[in-house]
Amino acid sequence: MTLPNHRMIRYGGDYNPDQWPEETWPRDLETLKRAGINTVTLGVFSWSKLQPAPDRYDFEWLDRLFDLVSDAGMQIYLATPTASPPAWLCRMYEDILPVDERGHRLHYGSRRHYCPNSPNYRRHAVDIATRLAERYGRHPALALWHVDNEYACHISACYCERCAQAFRRWLQAKYQTIDHLNDAWTTSFWSQRYRDWEEIEPPRLTPAYHNPSQALDWRRFMSDSFLECYLEQKRVINELSPGKPVTTNFMAWFSGLDYHRWAPHLDVASWDSYPGTGADAAEVAARHDLIRGLKGGRQPYLLMEQTPSQVNWMAYNAPQRPGEMRLRSLQAVAHGADAICFFQLRQSRGGAEKFHGAVLTASGSDRTRVYREVAQLGRELQRLQSIAGSEYRAQAAVLFSWPVWWAVEQEPRINQSLSYIDEVMRYYRALWRRGLEIDIVAPDADLASYRVVVAPLLRITTPDLRRRLEAYVRGGGLLVLTFHSGLTDDVDRLHMDGFPGLLQDLCGIEVEEFDVLRPGSTRSVSVVEPRGDFSGTYAVELWCDVVHLRGARALAVYTEDYYAGMPAVTEHEVGSGRVIYVGTALPASAVEALLGWAASHQGVSRVLEVPEGVEVVRRWMTGKPRPEAAQPKDEPVTFVLNHNPHPVSIRLPSRWHEVLTGQDLSGEVTLPGFGVWVLQHR
Amino acid sequence: MTLPNHRMIRYGGDYNPDQWPEETWPRDLETLKRAGINTVTLGVFSWSKLQPAPDRYDFEWLDRLFDLVSDAGMQIYLATPTASPPAWLCRMYEDILPVDERGHRLHYGSRRHYCPNSPNYRRHAVDIATRLAERYGRHPALALWHVDNEYACHISACYCERCAQAFRRWLQAKYQTIDHLNDAWTTSFWSQRYRDWEEIEPPRLTPAYHNPSQALDWRRFMSDSFLECYLEQKRVINELSPGKPVTTNFMAWFSGLDYHRWAPHLDVASWDSYPGTGADAAEVAARHDLIRGLKGGRQPYLLMEQTPSQVNWMAYNAPQRPGEMRLRSLQAVAHGADAICFFQLRQSRGGAEKFHGAVLTASGSDRTRVYREVAQLGRELQRLQSIAGSEYRAQAAVLFSWPVWWAVEQEPRINQSLSYIDEVMRYYRALWRRGLEIDIVAPDADLASYRVVVAPLLRITTPDLRRRLEAYVRGGGLLVLTFHSGLTDDVDRLHMDGFPGLLQDLCGIEVEEFDVLRPGSTRSVSVVEPRGDFSGTYAVELWCDVVHLRGARALAVYTEDYYAGMPAVTEHEVGSGRVIYVGTALPASAVEALLGWAASHQGVSRVLEVPEGVEVVRRWMTGKPRPEAAQPKDEPVTFVLNHNPHPVSIRLPSRWHEVLTGQDLSGEVTLPGFGVWVLQHR
Amino acid sequence: MTLPNHRMIRYGGDYNPDQWPEETWPRDLETLKRAGINTVTLGVFSWSKLQPAPDRYDFEWLDRLFDLVSDAGMQIYLATPTASPPAWLCRMYEDILPVDERGHRLHYGSRRHYCPNSPNYRRHAVDIATRLAERYGRHPALALWHVDNEYACHISACYCERCAQAFRRWLQAKYQTIDHLNDAWTTSFWSQRYRDWEEIEPPRLTPAYHNPSQALDWRRFMSDSFLECYLEQKRVINELSPGKPVTTNFMAWFSGLDYHRWAPHLDVASWDSYPGTGADAAEVAARHDLIRGLKGGRQPYLLMEQTPSQVNWMAYNAPQRPGEMRLRSLQAVAHGADAICFFQLRQSRGGAEKFHGAVLTASGSDRTRVYREVAQLGRELQRLQSIAGSEYRAQAAVLFSWPVWWAVEQEPRINQSLSYIDEVMRYYRALWRRGLEIDIVAPDADLASYRVVVAPLLRITTPDLRRRLEAYVRGGGLLVLTFHSGLTDDVDRLHMDGFPGLLQDLCGIEVEEFDVLRPGSTRSVSVVEPRGDFSGTYAVELWCDVVHLRGARALAVYTEDYYAGMPAVTEHEVGSGRVIYVGTALPASAVEALLGWAASHQGVSRVLEVPEGVEVVRRWMTGKPRPEAAQPKDEPVTFVLNHNPHPVSIRLPSRWHEVLTGQDLSGEVTLPGFGVWVLQHR
Repeated sequence: MTLPNHRMIRYGGDYNPDQWPEETWPRDLETLKRAGINTVTLGVFSWSKLQPAPDRYDFEWLDRLFDLVSDAGMQIYLATPTASPPAWLCRMYEDILPVDERGHRLHYGSRRHYCPNSPNYRRHAVDIATRLAERYGRHPALALWHVDNEYACHISACYCERCAQAFRRWLQAKYQTIDHLNDAWTTSFWSQRYRDWEEIEPPRLTPAYHNPSQALDWRRFMSDSFLECYLEQKRVINELSPGKPVTTNFMAWFSGLDYHRWAPHLDVASWDSYPGTGADAAEVAARHDLIRGLKGGRQPYLLMEQTPSQVNWMAYNAPQRPGEMRLRSLQAVAHGADAICFFQLRQSRGGAEKFHGAVLTASGSDRTRVYREVAQLGRELQRLQSIAGSEYRAQAAVLFSWPVWWAVEQEPRINQSLSYIDEVMRYYRALWRRGLEIDIVAPDADLASYRVVVAPLLRITTPDLRRRLEAYVRGGGLLVLTFHSGLTDDVDRLHMDGFPGLLQDLCGIEVEEFDVLRPGSTRSVSVVEPRGDFSGTYAVELWCDVVHLRGARALAVYTEDYYAGMPAVTEHEVGSGRVIYVGTALPASAVEALLGWAASHQGVSRVLEVPEGVEVVRRWMTGKPRPEAAQPKDEPVTFVLNHNPHPVSIRLPSRWHEVLTGQDLSGEVTLPGFGVWVLQHR
Repeated sequence: MTLPNHRMIRYGGDYNPDQWPEETWPRDLETLKRAGINTVTLGVFSWSKLQPAPDRYDFEWLDRLFDLVSDAGMQIYLATPTASPPAWLCRMYEDILPVDERGHRLHYGSRRHYCPNSPNYRRHAVDIATRLAERYGRHPALALWHVDNEYACHISACYCERCAQAFRRWLQAKYQTIDHLNDAWTTSFWSQRYRDWEEIEPPRLTPAYHNPSQALDWRRFMSDSFLECYLEQKRVINELSPGKPVTTNFMAWFSGLDYHRWAPHLDVASWDSYPGTGADAAEVAARHDLIRGLKGGRQPYLLMEQTPSQVNWMAYNAPQRPGEMRLRSLQAVAHGADAICFFQLRQSRGGAEKFHGAVLTASGSDRTRVYREVAQLGRELQRLQSIAGSEYRAQAAVLFSWPVWWAVEQEPRINQSLSYIDEVMRYYRALWRRGLEIDIVAPDADLASYRVVVAPLLRITTPDLRRRLEAYVRGGGLLVLTFHSGLTDDVDRLHMDGFPGLLQDLCGIEVEEFDVLRPGSTRSVSVVEPRGDFSGTYAVELWCDVVHLRGARALAVYTEDYYAGMPAVTEHEVGSGRVIYVGTALPASAVEALLGWAASHQGVSRVLEVPEGVEVVRRWMTGKPRPEAAQPKDEPVTFVLNHNPHPVSIRLPSRWHEVLTGQDLSGEVTLPGFGVWVLQHR
Repeated sequence: MTLPNHRMIRYGGDYNPDQWPEETWPRDLETLKRAGINTVTLGVFSWSKLQPAPDRYDFEWLDRLFDLVSDAGMQIYLATPTASPPAWLCRMYEDILPVDERGHRLHYGSRRHYCPNSPNYRRHAVDIATRLAERYGRHPALALWHVDNEYACHISACYCERCAQAFRRWLQAKYQTIDHLNDAWTTSFWSQRYRDWEEIEPPRLTPAYHNPSQALDWRRFMSDSFLECYLEQKRVINELSPGKPVTTNFMAWFSGLDYHRWAPHLDVASWDSYPGTGADAAEVAARHDLIRGLKGGRQPYLLMEQTPSQVNWMAYNAPQRPGEMRLRSLQAVAHGADAICFFQLRQSRGGAEKFHGAVLTASGSDRTRVYREVAQLGRELQRLQSIAGSEYRAQAAVLFSWPVWWAVEQEPRINQSLSYIDEVMRYYRALWRRGLEIDIVAPDADLASYRVVVAPLLRITTPDLRRRLEAYVRGGGLLVLTFHSGLTDDVDRLHMDGFPGLLQDLCGIEVEEFDVLRPGSTRSVSVVEPRGDFSGTYAVELWCDVVHLRGARALAVYTEDYYAGMPAVTEHEVGSGRVIYVGTALPASAVEALLGWAASHQGVSRVLEVPEGVEVVRRWMTGKPRPEAAQPKDEPVTFVLNHNPHPVSIRLPSRWHEVLTGQDLSGEVTLPGFGVWVLQHR
């Protein structure tokens, strides 16, 4: 199916106009359209408006909005309103309200106050979705279904008795017998053995640490519980709204859900990006690459929410500087986004987000810097319409796993300062600074097309993963692994192989023990076999594996402490490829040097030489699923994004056409602060 | 009614002698009387002693105390003991115990463990108050009723089901129809629409932010609930104890109650002051001015509690230095206090405050520095008796509003570091340092008598307030407004007028957007039209409004960031007056320069030139409600308070009589560290 | 009874082998034995394995382990598994699960999830202990009973209704009448008077501070409740396992239990030591001395748990450096430990402590530094076997009291930074650095044998204690007291004697008031009558008593603030001894100088002159309860422990035999970093 999403670059946002008289709606839409807005998201959080009472529905206001939007020549992303059940519903069925770890029932009056395993919630959620699908499912202006909103936000687990029961069923399906569960969870430790499924509870308030396997399964179960909510709605929508794609908006590095398990069920991935002013461009890029990676890495996705200026829920809600929203939006397009949407199109007049930025002010005004910037971007996106549907092609992959994240940060932790995301970013950032295009994908992704694969802290490792990694390396791949890899099975039970567990042979090493460093404490390593710029000495932090060589060669050794002279970084040739094991947390410069060498060695070079802080990424037209358009050659559109607030000078080795301005560029050219070029070869 | 309070300067404190044998009481009273103590507060927290069982009352010990105190020639402040219901009562009626936001019931065993909407609590509280009023209401030694103690301290809201019901009734009275409430609270946002009053709950534990209008109404409701407790007792006391004034002790900047709504129901304002050693004199002065401002600003009030040395509930409980308690006490008198009372007269032998300072030690000893200082002050207060009842006259007002405080600090906040009290103090302090006498009053106060009015962060603004502010300015007033003004209505819903909402025309500006600065981050502004010492450049913090002139002139402009060149401070002439709008957080020096100019421009000059850290404030004898005493002219008593620990030299331009020493002073005179003069013109 | 424990130095640890196939057990035991392990602790947390269902018991696996261990020539410490009741048991009787202060019931799924006053828990705990005692009580390999595990860890109080009832019974037994309780608790303060025992509650969640006497009695009651659990098991074990010693493992400075009340019921004291790498040697020494002091100070004790490398529950779990575990182990032996045991012998394969260090890895490997170090220590302990049972003899005592700890740190606190343990360590450390051998004992210990006694912050003082302290001093003792002494009775009610309460006469002073200093703030004191190196001026912190002399002489006076010139440190001769009162927190150098002089003055000199960081302590053979072995003379074994990581040079004034190496040493000899000598005179 060619998704209608990818036939154009969409430009839109959440619109909740029922706070104002209906007379104002046409003027709003006219003002928005003037800014290039072509898509309007309706219905998010409108349940109590659509169903004001158990037996009463009111769709007429929404009918009128559909008409107004259609008449204005715009299209609609229609949300199911199930993220915030009405007060009357929560009062009818108390089991809808979620319960926290301590047994407190949470109340309505904010949002997302539901238990994902409440049958009453689920039945009513499917009902309202069904009615929406029946009424609007075949509406020509309907472009996409947006189910619920930011699943599991605020409350990513409910500890009620219904969830306990569902957890038991989920475990029974996974383990079949209670003995298997006892074995998997090592319940003999601390006398936790179960004789009956009924005895098992969620990891509620306990005197000491939870059983870590139980905690891990619990997080999987909760992610699956929310997924089931989504799937129930998706099924009826698919039936009643044939051909219309369905998605839900994700939150990138959100620990509450394992998005890798959700991704197959989304027709297109989408997410909400709130980086704040002065955001780290590599960090934002990584989030895009993670979301795109959910569907394998090539297929476009949607930026479902961003603010046109500021949010109101951070500690310090500064607005984005002039040009910054445009830069972030075009960065999204560059990374594969085919939609740029705002929360929200008009600022609320009351409620918890009334000071959140919007395209129009609460009074509907367009006499603002914010509106002018939105309108300018609207004009520019028009010039980029032809790249809708084009694909992204990465040379490198970073493996990312929610279960690893959960396991690494489950209490008790070995090193309180060890953050999975930080370690992932330590490597991602190095690749990004070296100009590589990157996918962030699950460990079970197909790795064949990548020249370099990095898997930081790959703590959980199955025999199958081990086998696939070896196959990748044997086929010529370069794999970078780090300390804290290969240790445990899928319930975080130690492999009986010493450290690094299942990956010992692949790495050609054995880790005897490891040292743990406090913040601010470092040890020195010295490179004994340089690799490109990876040479000299470095101060390492956080963790020091004490490594014995079992076939690998040492690239760097410690020069301090009782493990002085022991290998810190090793290289092991396996088949036509090689595995680099980094047994410590190298500084950014060292990682960049090592991965820079790895990229070169694997034949990857920069698309364009650019100064620090300038990002170059490409979308490839060939990938476009548009059979009608004859595509002459495999030609990329190259985005050059200056994340610096100051201008930079870039030498263009050939003649380029800059799409946004329509000008030709060559030689030494200045790219303004926060400026963007979209280049095509002349 | 001429309050008996204001016929003399009272000197007293809480006395809880039932911890010791009755034989010790006369000796205590004799020792206290020797120190000048003339008033004894009895009965605070004595409920379980007065009513040891449901059907048993014991007033005899109190009768004896009344006799002893009367016989000693002292008078009595009698407290109702309702701040701490007895254990037996809480066990009879569990609904008396309050419930927190998470649903935990709080227990007895400390104090203030009651729900203000418990009918059982209220009935028993009125009962014990009635019995006290019947027995002692006409006692000649009774000088004042002190109802309960520090209302809402520790627990300023109860979330039980009774409170929920009372909240619904309160809302119904306010909004009449559920549609009005839905509109006022913007419940269409996040699907919070109610169809029935029964659906509304207190802002209990929720997954995300509460509806801010609900939260604001909830705080109003809770303040009113405690007020109703007070009023129920006051009604029976007024009936049974005619002519005896009634009050309760406040805690100045305490966010739990809207004291402005309480003040009309107090015959005299009173409060508890615990500044700690080395306190900021301006901060203490502001608290006095706030409390005095509750009754309009001129009428005297009572200092109901202070410690003679140290408290025991701060993190570090250092005692006040020699002379400091005296200085603080005379500062209170200077600001209008007609009573100086201590917590407590004798130190407890056990319990949670046994290490709290007192006039006598737990063993009853007077051989201490503390006692000596109390006795010295007692002698000095004798010399000030004639100023009892005299009035305070402020040249400047600072507007203060509990609902604004609640709204500004309700989560989510725009800037986590923005504190309402800090912004109020930013302006109060500048006025104080310039030697102005100040009232801190509610926005609905009569402003006619003030030369300068400052209203920091006047976020909530009604059309009526807007009209009154304009009338004040048109009549020649000078009004200073700041960023974050005029934005919302009384339930914190945005006015549909852009920023600063209802105050745009009055200010002659429009605010397009605002920047938010983190702690430590500043922007530079440059004065383009100096006003007195307000000139040059300043580093501003926290907030930067981006201002367009719509009739006003720019006094200062930003010189940094994307809003460089835009106005930061503006001035708008309206009628015979002017409005200064300060769109950012100016440093202390700038605020002092600007307000210094404002004061001069409005014809206010210093009473006396004094060095830094010396405060000069006056009480005016004319105001004294003492018809019998012919008052020759409108003559002030001038207090000169040296808040520095070191002596200062002051030039007195004319000859003065110093009341405390009886000496005449003129020319260059030295005022000791922590020293005080009470001056009258010769 | 000569304890079998003290017939040899035991070397062992917790062994939980049911995570692996039984085939692996013999190999584990063989590997452990090779490392010198001679004792294996079995059964900790094995309840759900031993009793998998209410009516089903499985001892066969444990029988087989007993056999295997016996056959290997090792002995057994057998734990009762009652620290972690099985899930089925908690589900049968909900009252087993403990309840926190807010009323949350805690759940099973970690460990120590039981209420000590649950009759159902107690009955089942005694049942399983009985069955173990019946089955193994007379087994020849059984060396010791280890009841439960770390009593009160994680949860040191349960607030359920059963505990409330038991608390009332406990109070009734203590106070007899409710009036006595009201008087003791000063319930007249804050209206807390009780008329009936039924009204009394645990100190549950309250709006403000708890009644401090109630809180203190509550902690005593809770400690007694857990003790009752222990005693119930001990009684059946004593009956069924005659002659076998019984203990439970303590946690040194753990505030949850008053170990002084437990100690008489332990046949031998034991504890778990987890100092972490780079630990402060004096702090570890103090913990040993506290534990040994529980049984009077001379009798050996057991080190029941330590890690051979790292733990996993600290924020940063670095392993101990090479040699550090050996040093810590020999420090334990030096201080009187007759057993060195590890948690655990083999690393877990799953569960909450799987990354905790162990003698063998999870895969059973011995190819590690850790195993090599364990084995080396095993060989060395063999050479120390003869000192098993020998005694420790201290010259100085530091008085320590759990009730004082509880009172000092009960909210509200006078000085938030005042820590009882820190003040105890301020004095202990000074004695330790001066080379004294020290007992840390309860205030009711026999003091006759000590040359110097220090009692920091002796807040709670009874007439009996006062009498015994005076007798000690009169008999020639030197007693050092500090600020915050003598003030309160056993329920923390002020003595009616001014400050320092009951100790005024003994100290010869009166404290008029005290100043409290914030962190970083100091005052200067000047020594007016030097004592040894205690001379010059010092900067003091935290607290400054304002002292009047009433018979004592001033040794040092304040030179700052309003109490300049007043005594800060005083000395009072009483009988043949003297009392030094230190009214402030002296810096470490001053305390060391003062106590150094005190030791000299009392005739105590260093055993050996050693550099900083080197500890010298002795065990005396005479004390050995081994009548069969003729002991020629009262000869000590002298341990010299270098806590520095670097080598030091030590001059040995005579010729010594070093037991570990068998070499003779004399003259200037180098002791390596972390090195230890065990010396005997040639």
